[in-house]
Amino acid sequence: MTNFLYKLDGETWFKEQVTGEIGHALRVDELLFEGEIDHQHIAVFENERFGRLFALNGFIQLSTADEFIYHEMVTHVPLFEHGAAKRVLVIGGGDGGVIREVLRHEEVEEVTLVEIEADVIEFSKKWFPGVSAGAFEHPKLKLEIADGAQFVKDPSRQYDVIIVDSTDPVGPGEVLFTEEFYADCRARLTDGGIMVSQCGLPFLQPVELKKAHDNQAQSFGSVTFYTIAVPAYSGGLMALGFARAGGVIPAEGEIAQRVARSGLEFRYYTPEGHRAAFALPAYVRRVVETGAFG
Amino acid sequence: MTNFLYKLDGETWFKEQVTGEIGHALRVDELLFEGEIDHQHIAVFENERFGRLFALNGFIQLSTADEFIYHEMVTHVPLFEHGAAKRVLVIGGGDGGVIREVLRHEEVEEVTLVEIEADVIEFSKKWFPGVSAGAFEHPKLKLEIADGAQFVKDPSRQYDVIIVDSTDPVGPGEVLFTEEFYADCRARLTDGGIMVSQCGLPFLQPVELKKAHDNQAQSFGSVTFYTIAVPAYSGGLMALGFARAGGVIPAEGEIAQRVARSGLEFRYYTPEGHRAAFALPAYVRRVVETGAFG
Repeated sequence: MTNFLYKLDGETWFKEQVTGEIGHALRVDELLFEGEIDHQHIAVFENERFGRLFALNGFIQLSTADEFIYHEMVTHVPLFEHGAAKRVLVIGGGDGGVIREVLRHEEVEEVTLVEIEADVIEFSKKWFPGVSAGAFEHPKLKLEIADGAQFVKDPSRQYDVIIVDSTDPVGPGEVLFTEEFYADCRARLTDGGIMVSQCGLPFLQPVELKKAHDNQAQSFGSVTFYTIAVPAYSGGLMALGFARAGGVIPAEGEIAQRVARSGLEFRYYTPEGHRAAFALPAYVRRVVETGAFG
Repeated sequence: MTNFLYKLDGETWFKEQVTGEIGHALRVDELLFEGEIDHQHIAVFENERFGRLFALNGFIQLSTADEFIYHEMVTHVPLFEHGAAKRVLVIGGGDGGVIREVLRHEEVEEVTLVEIEADVIEFSKKWFPGVSAGAFEHPKLKLEIADGAQFVKDPSRQYDVIIVDSTDPVGPGEVLFTEEFYADCRARLTDGGIMVSQCGLPFLQPVELKKAHDNQAQSFGSVTFYTIAVPAYSGGLMALGFARAGGVIPAEGEIAQRVARSGLEFRYYTPEGHRAAFALPAYVRRVVETGAFG
């Protein structure tokens, strides 16, 4: 057992070292998998409150009890903002949660998932079958095992919505936060296309958020953020980057009409919450502007 | 040292056992106070990320780095909704953060703080002087050392806004979540008066939120909630109960005008965020309706 797991009073716990100053601990009710895959430390375990969890190198990536929050918001906000997305690109997201939500939109004709490691998908299907919920077998899915940063360089590709479902901007995920990557994404979007990207926690990662903003602004001009609160993370709100490649901002009430027409139901997403999520707290605005919340 | 504090690789850490399944750990860069006061365990320490923290019986109550979020939102939402509050009652809140924010509103003529333990106020002034920031010495403050639940039984008292700044609905704070207490608060409000109350984390405490809702609804009829995300807590959004004793809901744009007229500036609060905070995620709505997020 590595030092992520420890015993206390007869119970096993998983320790997540969020930053050097903050830790998070989850009781391990059942340890389903622990080991190294491709030099990365992986743990899968059950916790009564958060359901089944996936940890990568000691960081919680997924909890079955709250994954609906992130997956619904990272998907339905851009899709309802666009209103008629036929081709969707998802970069990362090997757990299948984003494509599961994308495929609920009947207007989508094709969704491409670009995952760098084939193992991730097999692993997700084995341990988290409910997250993809059959999406990997869907006829509209195109699965590409490739480096996302390279994939978006191919000028023959065009998408209406790009969702960057990355890990945090440290280590292997860093390339998905660069000016070059965002410029390539911008070039792959159709007119009126939208890019959404995971941009971390403004309170804990203010410098990274500012950098993601500035790098996106280079290609997109105006970049905004919307926020969600994920129970399995401490550190307050998570920011999702929202960048539009031209096009028209939907009129007041239009989003709600699109949602009603879709007939879809959600566990987190609501049309009011969609709009509300863009109302950034003053400190998040300041982080975006200055890189500090001081 | 109690078992809240432990040593690891030469560092001292504070362990917060949030629930039986979830723990949270904060590095103790300097332990300023640790001991028992009135049979309650108290710790005050510095953490590089969260500033100075106050823990009561092992639960983090206050962090100087993020207290602005809770204190601004629990205060300015009801005060700007009301628009002309002259008399404000704060129950609990012995750290002085709420009265600090209330006293920024020039229209307020008197704010009464009811704290059950005089020691809490002395302790807060000593260790967290920046939180009250002189509010305990303000000429508009009436300080009452009393049991809040008894205090609101006196029919001679009337307030335009009541802010219930309580601990969670377990242990000594439980009496501030009862039907009887809310009925007394309702009776103490002027026409158009507003009560706001701390109602915990819907994701971790769904049953408690449902109960707080139902108990408030007995006296107030319609009860709504708004939410904030506090970085020092894990578990997602915190719900704040919002109940109006009759009166008129401000027209669209009116809140923003009141904020502009006040000339006040904030670190979290914005007029857009004020409105947005009431757009509850579907799962929080379901908790309020059913007591579960199923």
